[in-house]
Amino acid sequence: MNVTSKQIAELCGVTRGTVDRALNNRPGINPETRAKILRVAEELGYRPHFLAQSLVKGHTKTLGIVLFDIHNRIFSQLFHAFEAEARKRGYIVYLVLSNRNKELELEYINNLLDRRVDGIALLPANFNKKFESFLLRSRTPIVTFGNRLAGPFPYIWIDDKQAIRDSVAFLASRGYRHLFYVSPPLRRKGKENIYVPEQRYNGFVEACEAIPDMRFNVIAQKYYLDELNDLIEKTDGKRAILCSSDVYALEVLKWLKSRKIRVPEQIGLMGFDNIDVLNYVNPALTTVDYNVNAIGTGLADLLISRINEEEVPAETLIAHQVVPGESVSP
Amino acid sequence: MNVTSKQIAELCGVTRGTVDRALNNRPGINPETRAKILRVAEELGYRPHFLAQSLVKGHTKTLGIVLFDIHNRIFSQLFHAFEAEARKRGYIVYLVLSNRNKELELEYINNLLDRRVDGIALLPANFNKKFESFLLRSRTPIVTFGNRLAGPFPYIWIDDKQAIRDSVAFLASRGYRHLFYVSPPLRRKGKENIYVPEQRYNGFVEACEAIPDMRFNVIAQKYYLDELNDLIEKTDGKRAILCSSDVYALEVLKWLKSRKIRVPEQIGLMGFDNIDVLNYVNPALTTVDYNVNAIGTGLADLLISRINEEEVPAETLIAHQVVPGESVSP
Repeated sequence: MNVTSKQIAELCGVTRGTVDRALNNRPGINPETRAKILRVAEELGYRPHFLAQSLVKGHTKTLGIVLFDIHNRIFSQLFHAFEAEARKRGYIVYLVLSNRNKELELEYINNLLDRRVDGIALLPANFNKKFESFLLRSRTPIVTFGNRLAGPFPYIWIDDKQAIRDSVAFLASRGYRHLFYVSPPLRRKGKENIYVPEQRYNGFVEACEAIPDMRFNVIAQKYYLDELNDLIEKTDGKRAILCSSDVYALEVLKWLKSRKIRVPEQIGLMGFDNIDVLNYVNPALTTVDYNVNAIGTGLADLLISRINEEEVPAETLIAHQVVPGESVSP
Repeated sequence: MNVTSKQIAELCGVTRGTVDRALNNRPGINPETRAKILRVAEELGYRPHFLAQSLVKGHTKTLGIVLFDIHNRIFSQLFHAFEAEARKRGYIVYLVLSNRNKELELEYINNLLDRRVDGIALLPANFNKKFESFLLRSRTPIVTFGNRLAGPFPYIWIDDKQAIRDSVAFLASRGYRHLFYVSPPLRRKGKENIYVPEQRYNGFVEACEAIPDMRFNVIAQKYYLDELNDLIEKTDGKRAILCSSDVYALEVLKWLKSRKIRVPEQIGLMGFDNIDVLNYVNPALTTVDYNVNAIGTGLADLLISRINEEEVPAETLIAHQVVPGESVSP
């Protein structure tokens, strides 16, 4: 039941042309008539037809962003920064959540394309050629983050491999010589896009192998606490648990406390992401920090540049650093 | 650069009518031609014109949701449930964040209306008559949550007043006779919509006044830790801090730890919301739990019912309960 300019014209006793002139602030209309038309339009709750205008103009000033979820704080922090930058540049943002489900991701991208978003920021769960050619056929600017696609889609994130190398070096410098690497997403290899978990895994293995007396285990299963329990009981020496995300490190810390295993006295613990929740956790978790706001802002900027048909770098990497906490011994 | 049905017709050597029959799965076309048209449409990345169809059908199968932010976990949990229910019912969701800014809220609602969302779920920061008549003029179904408007907008949330009454009764039953109530949003009274903080405040004062020997202070300022510090130093007896949200209780807990004030031995502490972060915090925080998923799901359900022009209750209240943790003495 939307008000049309025709109805306004009838109520004001003028032509539709006159109404259009008033509403679009064009000349050729006397000020009193203009004021009257604007007042009537306001009273009726008239809205210019944005969708119809979009069809004509060919853009909607709308961006889509596809995230796995916003349970993980790192994604909600990233979204806040993305949304703020988009808004500053005159875009409204549609957030959709794939829940790491490949079919759902496709459905949502289709939905966004149906609604003619001007561009999509994508954390991909899909990864094959078919998916990439689907994206290319959409003729819609797409920028990826978090996971990578093989095709020509700009990517913004951090250097995950180097960040884990730095983590291993940090733990080694503190005297740890046996590391347990916890990364449950690795178990989805071949089933979904795990570019980032694989980068981190490769960095871990390379860095450990470069240290002669370093022993290590990789735990990729869903019930990682069970495997961790076995490994802790079967091993000794100065050991640390390195988790591929803070969300796992928090679960491990909670479990260690329940088992009365003291951190860092009996075992070291390190996370990745420096999510804001860590503010409230004791002992303070050693982790890898990176400027997630810079990623969110940069993501919006890259996407809008692509929409404006500007050249952008294929890869933008944001700096990271190890943040020493109390969960690793001095 | 979108593919049109005309281009498909030319490539296939058929009329546009035949293409339309194939794409819309209507009879009167031989199976081979249909298969060929569908294959060509797929190869070209053809998309039926959703926006144009929306203009004709008068709906977009899109919902808007306006939240303050997703930093507060309670909002991200609510959004997940809302989005899942909307998706199940065939709607895509646009999330926008007002950051408690009244002008920005208006701008975003205008944006959503411009994009012809079928309905809006609104956590209002605005509160006056003018805002309400703006919403009514939009002729768009709106359901509110978290804060209330005076006008005829269905509302879903919890009984905040009763929940704080229950919290005070719980603390009294544990022997506490001096309560410090921390609720910084109260300082925005008259400036923005603080319906929920006021309900909780009223419940607090009423419940305390009903207990003859209960003393209490209300802390509404932004730098609540400073005031809390003064009050703790100036008072004695069995005291507890009751916070209007877990996010404040977590800050208070962190500060008490830094001051080496033991919880609950030296002072009791209670939050509100039972956000999932509490899982990782020691001592376990006593708080008020309610089913935020039920609110998110119910919100989507109410909104879709309104869109379908069904009657819905003016008010839907979800149950709450005090969850005893370790931050209040037995």
